[in-house]
Amino acid sequence: MKKRISVLGSTGSIGTQTLDVIRHHPDRFEAVVLAASGSRIDLLIEQALEFRPKWVAVAREELAGALERQLPDGIRVAAGEAGLAQVAAEAGADIVVSAIVGTAGLVPTLAAVGAGIPVALANKESLVAAGHLVMAEAAAKGVPIVPVDSEHSAIFQCLNGEPRGAIDKLILTASGGAFRNRSREELTDVTPDEALRHPNWAMGAKVTIDSATLANKGLEVMEAHWLFGVPFDAIDVLLHDESVIHSMVQFADGSVMAQLGTPDMRIPIQYALTWPDRLDSPARRLDLAEIGRLHFRRADFARFPMLRLAYEAGRTGGTLPAVFNAANETAVQLFLQRKIRFLQIEEIVERVMEAHRIEPHPDLDGVLGADRHAREAVLSLVSG
Amino acid sequence: MKKRISVLGSTGSIGTQTLDVIRHHPDRFEAVVLAASGSRIDLLIEQALEFRPKWVAVAREELAGALERQLPDGIRVAAGEAGLAQVAAEAGADIVVSAIVGTAGLVPTLAAVGAGIPVALANKESLVAAGHLVMAEAAAKGVPIVPVDSEHSAIFQCLNGEPRGAIDKLILTASGGAFRNRSREELTDVTPDEALRHPNWAMGAKVTIDSATLANKGLEVMEAHWLFGVPFDAIDVLLHDESVIHSMVQFADGSVMAQLGTPDMRIPIQYALTWPDRLDSPARRLDLAEIGRLHFRRADFARFPMLRLAYEAGRTGGTLPAVFNAANETAVQLFLQRKIRFLQIEEIVERVMEAHRIEPHPDLDGVLGADRHAREAVLSLVSG
Repeated sequence: MKKRISVLGSTGSIGTQTLDVIRHHPDRFEAVVLAASGSRIDLLIEQALEFRPKWVAVAREELAGALERQLPDGIRVAAGEAGLAQVAAEAGADIVVSAIVGTAGLVPTLAAVGAGIPVALANKESLVAAGHLVMAEAAAKGVPIVPVDSEHSAIFQCLNGEPRGAIDKLILTASGGAFRNRSREELTDVTPDEALRHPNWAMGAKVTIDSATLANKGLEVMEAHWLFGVPFDAIDVLLHDESVIHSMVQFADGSVMAQLGTPDMRIPIQYALTWPDRLDSPARRLDLAEIGRLHFRRADFARFPMLRLAYEAGRTGGTLPAVFNAANETAVQLFLQRKIRFLQIEEIVERVMEAHRIEPHPDLDGVLGADRHAREAVLSLVSG
Repeated sequence: MKKRISVLGSTGSIGTQTLDVIRHHPDRFEAVVLAASGSRIDLLIEQALEFRPKWVAVAREELAGALERQLPDGIRVAAGEAGLAQVAAEAGADIVVSAIVGTAGLVPTLAAVGAGIPVALANKESLVAAGHLVMAEAAAKGVPIVPVDSEHSAIFQCLNGEPRGAIDKLILTASGGAFRNRSREELTDVTPDEALRHPNWAMGAKVTIDSATLANKGLEVMEAHWLFGVPFDAIDVLLHDESVIHSMVQFADGSVMAQLGTPDMRIPIQYALTWPDRLDSPARRLDLAEIGRLHFRRADFARFPMLRLAYEAGRTGGTLPAVFNAANETAVQLFLQRKIRFLQIEEIVERVMEAHRIEPHPDLDGVLGADRHAREAVLSLVSG
């Protein structure tokens, strides 16, 4: 029996690599849903013609007609937020890869979990902003949430066969991004082009900026908290230049388990699809003798204020993590558009977090409302 | 229920650390047997008075009387090889820690396995010389063999919850010992005192010399072959100066799992006793930021001929691994006694291996006979 996979966000970085994994194992996997925002509609059509899913879904409703015209009869088309949520829940998948970027990924993720379908989770917002909702629903339905992020996949692998009660702490590694060897003073005038030169991974622009501020690591700390049920005091961040150790778990006996690999996202994506089994992969093998040295440094809250703010948001909970995430995303866009300077990202996020009136137990509407308000607050701060 | 533990080799390095683990968890563990060679009889008596086991056993029969006089009535005394084998099999233990050094550990290990008692294995000879006998007996009785060596414990931990069929290769790390930064030319005149300065671990003299020649790693390659059922082509050795990563497993998907920790043998000893659970431990925690850097290099057969000879012995099998081990042990003693030079160790082992007539499927007597002949061959080579 082939595993039937729904790929939400099929035209993005994680989505295309998920399809590459499926392509390498045609006897094991088949794509039953391809869903995307619609920003790369030609690629979505091309994918549909190659993988012949049951459903193709597009977030932008106005593109539904074009899809229907260009796809053969056997492939059904859904559109809009409701269409995405529907195919996530109803297409008969064995697992849903949730890789839509941003808040738009939240509703389809919840729909899949609500329908009792295991989720391979790449969408950060689902756990950062709505971890309390997603994990409660997953627990109620007995649905596994398997991480796709390299760090969380590493921790997930380190926990294989281990007693959960014996976790001492999680150690998330961070490359430190493009500016890891600069002091704060040297960050005043950095440009988007400089910030986009990530030392190890090829990723989208937003994530690459988040790597340089460690906002990304802060979001991952919050995700780890929800995924593994570990308090924030038991989650450490360690700067590790080479991104070879993807993360670690220290246990009660002092033993530390780590997962390592080359920087190829197909490894954690495939693991999420095969867990608890493993299949062969075309990913390049790790050669530590060739690499020679691995470096480690402490992640300093004074040097990386976004990490401090993320821990603060995570510990406080309620709507504050959604605000941290939305304010950061908006500020990063403004930086990429050259409307603010690099160090203003953290300044703006902190001000928006301070001004936010926290709702301690928000429902989905409460989370989405806090997200919207935070974005508006950033824009009004900058235009004002 | 406390776990009842037999400690064979209680006065040695692994034995005393095993008792330290038991001492830290008096509610979890109790020592039911303490057995030792008798070379440190005062320590054995002291241990018996502290831990109050059911049995104390001593290999040197002439010491039985002294033990009986000095121990209280509740503690029974056994002596000789037969006495050790008897208490290993019959003392009602839940697990036997096999930590007698050398070939003397083989018979009691087989006795415990034959009696269906799980073994925490530190005695190398049991697997190097008689892996085919020990593993066949363990399989027949359904008895787990849990490794105590830090490298094999690391691999054992990396395999937790993993499909055995997905192992791509085992990667044993090696510090490289005292002379790792010297060329072969610089080894001509090294003294035992220089060879005994191990950079990371405090161990006995023989093991420390074996670290410098990589004979120790060669023995571990053979142990790993038997413990994990992995062919020699799928076992790599990687030089890693800091001994922080204790060993690794690369899986079919390119993912590498590693176990790390401070150089404290109480961690793997305790794990062998608690597996699959973990308990807290007084071992110092690993601090990678403080360590800063980890280094890796290839282990070169030309630089470390003992490693090449060990692979050759392992691949050939039969009595050759016993010969490799016994010839090495004897040659190392001669080096420590300043009767041969450092580089003669490998020269002698190779000559004895070449002269040996291999018995392909030896029984226990065949293994012990090959061991004796190899020792005699070394001595006659040197005196001749």
